[in-house]
Amino acid sequence: MRKHLEIFPVTGLPEVAAGDDLAALIADGADLRDGDVVSVTSKIVSKAEGRLTYGTRREAVDAELVRVVAQRGETRIVQTRHGLVMAAAGTDTSNTAPGTVLLLPVDPDRSARSLRAALKDRYDVNVGIVVTDTLGRPWRNGQTDVAIGAAGVRVVEDLRGTTDSHGNVLAVTEPALADEIAGASELVKGKADGVPVAVLRGLEDAVLPVGEDGPGARALVRDAEHDMFSLGTREAARAAVLDRQPPTGPRELDPLLLSDLAVEGVLVEAGDNAVTVSGADPVTVGVAAERVAVLLHAEGYGVAVQAGPGAVATVTFGSRSK
Amino acid sequence: MRKHLEIFPVTGLPEVAAGDDLAALIADGADLRDGDVVSVTSKIVSKAEGRLTYGTRREAVDAELVRVVAQRGETRIVQTRHGLVMAAAGTDTSNTAPGTVLLLPVDPDRSARSLRAALKDRYDVNVGIVVTDTLGRPWRNGQTDVAIGAAGVRVVEDLRGTTDSHGNVLAVTEPALADEIAGASELVKGKADGVPVAVLRGLEDAVLPVGEDGPGARALVRDAEHDMFSLGTREAARAAVLDRQPPTGPRELDPLLLSDLAVEGVLVEAGDNAVTVSGADPVTVGVAAERVAVLLHAEGYGVAVQAGPGAVATVTFGSRSK
Repeated sequence: MRKHLEIFPVTGLPEVAAGDDLAALIADGADLRDGDVVSVTSKIVSKAEGRLTYGTRREAVDAELVRVVAQRGETRIVQTRHGLVMAAAGTDTSNTAPGTVLLLPVDPDRSARSLRAALKDRYDVNVGIVVTDTLGRPWRNGQTDVAIGAAGVRVVEDLRGTTDSHGNVLAVTEPALADEIAGASELVKGKADGVPVAVLRGLEDAVLPVGEDGPGARALVRDAEHDMFSLGTREAARAAVLDRQPPTGPRELDPLLLSDLAVEGVLVEAGDNAVTVSGADPVTVGVAAERVAVLLHAEGYGVAVQAGPGAVATVTFGSRSK
Repeated sequence: MRKHLEIFPVTGLPEVAAGDDLAALIADGADLRDGDVVSVTSKIVSKAEGRLTYGTRREAVDAELVRVVAQRGETRIVQTRHGLVMAAAGTDTSNTAPGTVLLLPVDPDRSARSLRAALKDRYDVNVGIVVTDTLGRPWRNGQTDVAIGAAGVRVVEDLRGTTDSHGNVLAVTEPALADEIAGASELVKGKADGVPVAVLRGLEDAVLPVGEDGPGARALVRDAEHDMFSLGTREAARAAVLDRQPPTGPRELDPLLLSDLAVEGVLVEAGDNAVTVSGADPVTVGVAAERVAVLLHAEGYGVAVQAGPGAVATVTFGSRSK
C-alpha cells in the first residue's frame, strides 16, 4: 500500500519547439526527487522531436495508420505503428499552426528512455517517465489519458498468483499502473490550460533502479489476435465476407458452432474438413453455405465455399494463416 | 488548472458486512474536508448493501447480464443492467467466502448519493463520491479502475467549444474526470492490500454544491447503438447471419457500400428497395446474395433474402427497428 500520493503540475514551461531540450525545461520547472514519476504529454515530446508535418489531417492519418479498426462517417479508429488503437492515429491539430499536423513521437518508449537518461546524467535524479496521450474508449463516454511511452516505471502491477485476505488467488488482476498514472496526472494538467507536465510523488516503489528501464508502454498494447474487439462491429461483419482466408491446414470442428443456424429446406452435414450443404433449391443452398462460411470465419477458421455440382455446396474449413 | 492534488488511502477500516454504516466508517477513518472527493471501491458498497448471493459465479453472471457482448472460451464480456460492459458482469469471488458471489450494487449512483448525503447530514462535510470498480479494456493489457457510481462530482469535463492557445476549438475533448479519479485513487488503494477507500484533495472545482448530485457515473455509459464496438469481432460476424432483422421502412442505399464485393459470374444490381443478384449458377447466386445481405446488415440495414425464381435472388433492404 502506498501512503500518500502527491501530484504537481509543472507550470511556466515555454511553448516547446523542435530541438528543445525537454530534460532541461522539466528540471528547471520542477524540483525533482529520486523516485518521482514525471508524466509528459506526448504533444511536447512530438514538438521537441520535430514531428510536425504539412498537409491535411486526413493525409497524415493515412500515412500513420497500419490498419483501420473501425470507421463511421469521418471518424476513423485506426491502429498505429506503435500498436495503439486510437482515433485519427494520434495526429493532432489543436495547438498547432494552421496547415500543419503534429504526429506522435516515432517511438514514445525511446523518447521516455532518452528523457530519463538525460535527467539522470545531467541532473542526477532517478525518476520514472510516462509519456501520455488522450484516448477514447469503447462503451464509455469521454476520454482518459493513457501511457503511450514509459521508462523506468513498472507499467503493470502483476498481482496474478497473489492471494487476498481470504486466501483466494487474485487470478486476473493486473492493474495498468502506467495508464492510471497518466490519467491521474491529467487531473492536474488539464487540456485547455497548456500544462503538459506533471510530477507524481509517492510512487517510489514503482520506479525502477537506474539502468533498468523496463518494458515500456509497449507492454500495455494487446496484440490484435488476442483481442476480442480487434475490429468494429461493422468492420467485423464486412470482414466476414470480404476478408476471408482459405484453410491452410487441418482444424477440428466444434459441432455446437453451427447449431444456431437453421435454414428451411437445407441439410447441413459436417465432415472432417468440409461442411456439405444440400437441398432442393440451389439458391437457398448457396445462401446457407455462405452463412456456414461466415460462422466458421467468426471462429477463426480458414474457409472456402465451392458451388455444385447441382444443389450442393461444399464449405471446406481448417486453420488459417492469420 | 489545478495546483496540487493529494491522494490518501483510508486505512484501518474493518471488514465491511451487510448493514454496516459506510459513512460512519469513512468519517471515522479519514479527516474529510469540504471539497474532497472520496473514492470507494464498489466491493465494500456491495457488502454494506448485502449484495452477496449463494451459488456459482456462472449462475450469478447469467442473472446479472442483459446481453453478451463477446465471449471466448470461459470469458464472457457482458453488459449489465447499469449499462456497464465488463467481464463476468462485475461479480466478484475474491475476498468472499467460498460458495458466495458478490454482485455489484443495484444502483451505484444511488449508493453514491446516499453516502454523500449521510456524510453531509451527519458529519457536515460536502464531498464528492466516486464508486469504483476494476475493468479490463479492449486493445490494452491490464485493468484500470473506473467510476461506476458518482454523486456530487463532475463526471466529465466538457471542454467542447473552448479554444486552445492558437484559437483552435477543442472539438472532441471531454476528459472522463470520474474515471481518472477512480484510476488515480487505485494507485494508493491497491488490490491485494484491502484498502477500499481513498480521499483526493485538490479537486474542489470538480465537487458540486450541496443539493446538486450531478448526473452520476451513468453519464459515462455510452449507448450500444452509438458504439462502434457494441459486439466482439466474433459476435458481430455471427450476428450478421444469425440476428438479422427484416426491413421496416425505406432507406436509401449508398452505392459504394457493395463496391468491394465481386463474385465471379454474378451480376449485382441495386434498386430502390432491393438488390437483385443473378447469374448462370444458382448456388453461386445464393452465396453472393447472402454476402450482399451481410454487407447491408453491417451498415445497419434491415435485410431479407428471397431465393428465385431460377438463378436469381432478391435482397430487400430498408431501415430496421433496432
